[in-house]
Amino acid sequence: VIVQLALDRVSIDEAIRLGTLAEPYVDWIEVGTSLIKEFGMTSVRELRRAFPGKPIVADMKTFDNARYEFALCYRAGADVATVMGAAPAVSIDACLETARDLGGEVMIDLLNVSAEQMPELLRRSEAIVCAHLSKDQQELSGGGAAAGAPLPGLAALTRLGGPRLAVAGGISAASLGSLGAVRPDVLIVGGAITQAADPAAAARDFREALRKFQEGGPT
Amino acid sequence: VIVQLALDRVSIDEAIRLGTLAEPYVDWIEVGTSLIKEFGMTSVRELRRAFPGKPIVADMKTFDNARYEFALCYRAGADVATVMGAAPAVSIDACLETARDLGGEVMIDLLNVSAEQMPELLRRSEAIVCAHLSKDQQELSGGGAAAGAPLPGLAALTRLGGPRLAVAGGISAASLGSLGAVRPDVLIVGGAITQAADPAAAARDFREALRKFQEGGPT
Repeated sequence: VIVQLALDRVSIDEAIRLGTLAEPYVDWIEVGTSLIKEFGMTSVRELRRAFPGKPIVADMKTFDNARYEFALCYRAGADVATVMGAAPAVSIDACLETARDLGGEVMIDLLNVSAEQMPELLRRSEAIVCAHLSKDQQELSGGGAAAGAPLPGLAALTRLGGPRLAVAGGISAASLGSLGAVRPDVLIVGGAITQAADPAAAARDFREALRKFQEGGPT
Repeated sequence: VIVQLALDRVSIDEAIRLGTLAEPYVDWIEVGTSLIKEFGMTSVRELRRAFPGKPIVADMKTFDNARYEFALCYRAGADVATVMGAAPAVSIDACLETARDLGGEVMIDLLNVSAEQMPELLRRSEAIVCAHLSKDQQELSGGGAAAGAPLPGLAALTRLGGPRLAVAGGISAASLGSLGAVRPDVLIVGGAITQAADPAAAARDFREALRKFQEGGPT
């Protein structure tokens, strides 16, 4: 399983500092939406440069102007860029085309996708789909997966073949058990590492908890 | 009616150049999503500085992390920021709260909003709702409102009281007639001005066509 470290709500320098502390224990580095909207593509370029050995995910949350936005990301050095599943189908198609043209990958964020939209998204087998409990929903429910909030549609997703599955939203060492029988391809971890008093130790502990979880033992 | 000039897919310097040419004929200046994602809040700050007399709209297209993103916009000098109507209701609530706290306004983009979500959005009477045919949809249909593509839900919207109405997507002097009996509070114009050979003349012609349209005569 790929561990994706989400870096959000900090300066670029602080993102690089946090990423460097966690680097030995994570696989992918995510440039969070808040960094992109505050600092633009400079954030993607600087994290690309700081972590040459790690795939970089640009959490672009594209909703329109898909070809332009995805080209910006890939040209700034991102390997993966995100599009909202709630966006028009024509935009998601344009993301997938741009990814093929420029050699990148697409992650489709399922946040607030309607029941009507979902089946079509689960047919995008070349993409990664991300079951996502949002920051704002976590604040409402008091702590995301850690607080036992359901990850919507997750059970249904895992009964299907198709796209790879990522899970995001309040994931921590303590909340891995709430995944149950779900085995995501990508686990997105943010605050559990970046807001820890000792981010390096938190990243190491998460990796260790994940290893035990994958072995089926107690986490 | 307020004419909002949308500046997209250009450098900040080019956005300022285009805005300066159109300035006498438009009311609000929009920092497009593509500028925000490419250049970050620098784009909002620089357009704020370049157009001290005009309200600035940050087309943030927020979908999560609403309080943080809206505070970024207002603190960078935006008067209005946009949130996707397709986002979770808790995020839209957070935008409205942040707007009240910081003295800004909220525009809710109705792009790809489901029939289930729409009634709730139309109750947000302190917001501006934006009926939006997206860039990607325009390319698919070959030219937006100018090509006679329907602005989804517009007729229903205008039969209701509630939020102020903005209309976006392929609006031009030639397409004003397609609004029919709809009388938006805000008309968002982009390419019809910014991609014209003479942007100042295009802006002047649009304003003149709008004046005739409002008088009910031929445009």
